Amino acid sequence: MSGVYEQLTQFPLFSGISESELKELAGEMSLKSFDAGNDIIREGDTGEEMYLLTAGTVDVIKKTMFGDSYVCATLDSDKHCVFGEMALIDSDVRSATVRAKTSCSTLVIDKCAFDRYINAHPSTGIVLLKLISINLVRNLREENNNLELVYQALIDEIENS
Amino acid sequence: MSGVYEQLTQFPLFSGISESELKELAGEMSLKSFDAGNDIIREGDTGEEMYLLTAGTVDVIKKTMFGDSYVCATLDSDKHCVFGEMALIDSDVRSATVRAKTSCSTLVIDKCAFDRYINAHPSTGIVLLKLISINLVRNLREENNNLELVYQALIDEIENS
Repeated sequence: MSGVYEQLTQFPLFSGISESELKELAGEMSLKSFDAGNDIIREGDTGEEMYLLTAGTVDVIKKTMFGDSYVCATLDSDKHCVFGEMALIDSDVRSATVRAKTSCSTLVIDKCAFDRYINAHPSTGIVLLKLISINLVRNLREENNNLELVYQALIDEIENS
Repeated sequence: MSGVYEQLTQFPLFSGISESELKELAGEMSLKSFDAGNDIIREGDTGEEMYLLTAGTVDVIKKTMFGDSYVCATLDSDKHCVFGEMALIDSDVRSATVRAKTSCSTLVIDKCAFDRYINAHPSTGIVLLKLISINLVRNLREENNNLELVYQALIDEIENS
């Protein structure tokens, strides 16, 4: 389990959490590995886990309404990326597929374990929820910008056609 | 101040918070009124306040890259709407303008007061942050859907032109 703790200390998401509480959080997590080409999360599935990418690279893939797939982001373990965090907040379906581009290692925590942990350690829970919220806000601002760009491209296309 | 507390009890955002803690939260809030046509929040401005709409209707307005404005949502106090909550999480610029469509009343809490409150009451802080996160996730899912729709419209327009 010390391996999990060591890896956790690398993630900015958990900076500012005391050693003892971080070790306890490590106890709520499990290790999962994926071969290149395998789906870690599938768009449309229900799921209640957040993943911390500790080794490897993943593609975040979305489908258009006609079923065409496109890669909307690539995440690398060097950047200590986190994905699936929306599942810790609500229990709706996955908004994208996350596919291992190389062989990958992850640390996984599910909603139940997360809720148990933040309720047992509310002060640390606040730190974690704020950091997850910052991730959500950053994604929301990015989606706003993307929407504006695509909307403008649509207007241009209509005006020039 | 009891007026503030009474109004707070109407908001689902604060359901599950004890009377004494909700009264304390009410003490961190102020009342602000706006005449019809006035901007409550301006896109691009910095701001650190979340607003609870207690009376009236507001338009959420965004600008395209060429400066054209469009209404992307209309919020009504009947639905106990909350806006500006991203400002409690980060301190980036406002992502949209919110304009009073009718005369409006709001309850306002700023980031400083919010942080002070959740740090003093971590268990309640967790409830609040989770509810704010649920709002963020809902908005993010909506933006995802909007982006997909506009992207598909762009593809259709290109293929048919």
